[in-house]
Amino acid sequence: MAERMIVIGGDAAGMSAASQARRRRDRSDLEIVAFERGHFTSYSACGIPYWVSGVVQERDELIARDPKTFRDEFGIEVRTRHEVTAIDLDRREVLARDLDGGGEVRAGFDTLVYATGASPVQPDWTRDDVAGVFGVQTLDDGAALIHWLESEPRPRRAVVVGGGYVGVEMAEALVQRGLSVQLVEQADQPMATVDPDMGELVAEAMRATGIGVRTGLTVTGLEERDGRISAVVTDEGPVPADVVVLGLGVRPNTALAEAAGLPIGPSGGVRTDRRMRVPGAPGVWAAGDCVESLHRVSGMPVHVPLGTHANKQGRVAGINIGGGYATFPGVIGTAVTKVCELEVGRTGLRERDALEAGFEFVTVLAQSTNRAGYYPGSRPMTVKLLAERPSGRLLGAQIVGWSEAAKRIDALAVALWNGMTVDEMTALDLGYAPPYAPVWDPVLIAARKAVDALAAV
Amino acid sequence: MAERMIVIGGDAAGMSAASQARRRRDRSDLEIVAFERGHFTSYSACGIPYWVSGVVQERDELIARDPKTFRDEFGIEVRTRHEVTAIDLDRREVLARDLDGGGEVRAGFDTLVYATGASPVQPDWTRDDVAGVFGVQTLDDGAALIHWLESEPRPRRAVVVGGGYVGVEMAEALVQRGLSVQLVEQADQPMATVDPDMGELVAEAMRATGIGVRTGLTVTGLEERDGRISAVVTDEGPVPADVVVLGLGVRPNTALAEAAGLPIGPSGGVRTDRRMRVPGAPGVWAAGDCVESLHRVSGMPVHVPLGTHANKQGRVAGINIGGGYATFPGVIGTAVTKVCELEVGRTGLRERDALEAGFEFVTVLAQSTNRAGYYPGSRPMTVKLLAERPSGRLLGAQIVGWSEAAKRIDALAVALWNGMTVDEMTALDLGYAPPYAPVWDPVLIAARKAVDALAAV
Repeated sequence: MAERMIVIGGDAAGMSAASQARRRRDRSDLEIVAFERGHFTSYSACGIPYWVSGVVQERDELIARDPKTFRDEFGIEVRTRHEVTAIDLDRREVLARDLDGGGEVRAGFDTLVYATGASPVQPDWTRDDVAGVFGVQTLDDGAALIHWLESEPRPRRAVVVGGGYVGVEMAEALVQRGLSVQLVEQADQPMATVDPDMGELVAEAMRATGIGVRTGLTVTGLEERDGRISAVVTDEGPVPADVVVLGLGVRPNTALAEAAGLPIGPSGGVRTDRRMRVPGAPGVWAAGDCVESLHRVSGMPVHVPLGTHANKQGRVAGINIGGGYATFPGVIGTAVTKVCELEVGRTGLRERDALEAGFEFVTVLAQSTNRAGYYPGSRPMTVKLLAERPSGRLLGAQIVGWSEAAKRIDALAVALWNGMTVDEMTALDLGYAPPYAPVWDPVLIAARKAVDALAAV
Repeated sequence: MAERMIVIGGDAAGMSAASQARRRRDRSDLEIVAFERGHFTSYSACGIPYWVSGVVQERDELIARDPKTFRDEFGIEVRTRHEVTAIDLDRREVLARDLDGGGEVRAGFDTLVYATGASPVQPDWTRDDVAGVFGVQTLDDGAALIHWLESEPRPRRAVVVGGGYVGVEMAEALVQRGLSVQLVEQADQPMATVDPDMGELVAEAMRATGIGVRTGLTVTGLEERDGRISAVVTDEGPVPADVVVLGLGVRPNTALAEAAGLPIGPSGGVRTDRRMRVPGAPGVWAAGDCVESLHRVSGMPVHVPLGTHANKQGRVAGINIGGGYATFPGVIGTAVTKVCELEVGRTGLRERDALEAGFEFVTVLAQSTNRAGYYPGSRPMTVKLLAERPSGRLLGAQIVGWSEAAKRIDALAVALWNGMTVDEMTALDLGYAPPYAPVWDPVLIAARKAVDALAAV
């Protein structure tokens, strides 16, 4: 008789695990059932801002694979609108509620993959009785927001609360739809994933595109008129709003895991080993936005909810469940985004992270251009590096610039991954041609400047 | 009394060496004199195709620093139009001819930097008595070609001989100027720096933009009418031409070094150690297009004439001459170019290189896209990897694609530089956001495919 693998959560991590396990074990050997509380499987939450902006036109473009495809092509059963409500590790079964039909399902497992994802942080000032306030975590969230934007009376003034990736991307999306947008951020800068000096460049670019960037502002409540949002209340007064988008980050969905006695790490995510096994729970695996990962530079556990990690972790779990061998060796915090035309890339530690981890280091900011100075379209690029002192080991990098700036972070990410020193980096053989780089690539210019800074200390 | 450093060749390598030495040793300690046989210092030869195309409008935009700047700001004396004709290592002096004034100069040195560059390969069928045939190595070459293109009778049909970087870039430039262009290449594909399967993608794209790509054609001579070029003669008949551009590669300028008894390596370039010292010749350094470099993957000496290496090598020589410590650890053959809108990147070994070096390996071709599939402007990208068998170590990579394809080679170049295996690469933390990559970056997709290929062997 076939063993049964149950997956809790039918998105990137869970379905990657299911697919990889299926590649290695056929139906006669392994039955695979995934429970998903939403309507959809394997969709791109990262694509929602571009759907809202109108750059992506149809919701279904964001769906990589639907439940029918999983069933027909992979022999993986997906039960959407089924929310798992309990895990019984002793009996090796889960309890799920049918959110539409109303019934309960009890299903036994040999192997369990915990891939419940993360949920948006709900501030204490949110109110259920005010219409026009939206998160942007699920396709349903996106659909509700778009519906609101297209209904009468048409919203004209938007407030985005929170200046992280989702916040700045949503601010851009709403500007592109023709709304007047205010971004409200509690910290002194938007895009707190980069250092303040780099974040200021982002703020400048946002302001230049007409986005109001209000930093150092704490939201304390909402104002409504006839049940519709009319303003966001802050410690510096109300900010008028016909629509509010929340971008306050996400927290790992661990309630189920905690109730079942699975270990939760210091970052708040479910703990796993390198093969994505949950320690102390044989046959139980976890992956995706609900787990914590090792930060390879700081050596500390971190919670980095991002589709690229979810896919990798799910794949690793699935390969191992399938009888193969794979490990997820951790993250270094690489991320890219664009705010209108400005591109931002980052990897590794910020100054505050490096201090917290106990490193001594130098920082340099190098100004350069994306192309040879004489080549049309040459535009400024700023590269910031953090290098450990005195070893010279790269600890982190940030890039802000224009065309073809963001993905240059990848070369720095691979250097960081491999523990290179900035001195070693000055010799790197990177691609050079006038349409793509000055003869000294911006990455190399920054590395040289870091070498000089280390020598000057 | 100050020591004297003489530099032979006032371009990237020589002037980088001079600048770096000056940073560390002032005029009272080190006199620096550079002899340059041309009119210019520190110009971008790589920019000439873009000047010819009209994308770059003024010759002077290609000049990074002129002799006056070197003299006034750095205290480096540059004697342009002075050709060094002999090096006497015993007497420690060079002999130089003033190409304009006609006199001879004799100058003693304590330190010598040999940075004579490379010269275009002259095929045996070139003829001095036929006007309208051009190389594109120097700014004077570029000026002469532009003058010919703008003179009456206006050339309409161009033949580019040689399908390397210069050849394809010049073909593009001439098409942009409105000429009818035929690229004639002796090999079976243009862009022989990538494997034939990838080169075919380049040929297709060139043909799609109206460039005639004639491969497997050997040029045997030229035809003229009234002293002007009228056709290129090939083993398959004449190809009509009003202008011919030669892109047959370059050879290191070593005659002077050979005559002085400096060691020449198997690749044809001057030999150096890692600090860019010439072995057996105390106080003599060499850098740039005239030297050979270690290929870090094959372990073999190679001649890779490229501005980025010349700058690095010159910098290393200059730091060492200045009393510091720096090394040039070799190259891995990274290069990028564009042919009209198509972008090409490569690093490491091609199949033929890997075979010649004695590696066993697998190759994979992975199809992907530059952006998330649903994001506008998403276009195909092909990534080819070579991985050693059974170790999985990356040996080489090639990318052909559209917007933001070429510089993605940098991430692969840094992975190759660090000796990563394709299995390790599948875990790399690269930047992900829908405008910049699918959730599995093309580099990661290719690495996964290579892992599968290794397992299948």
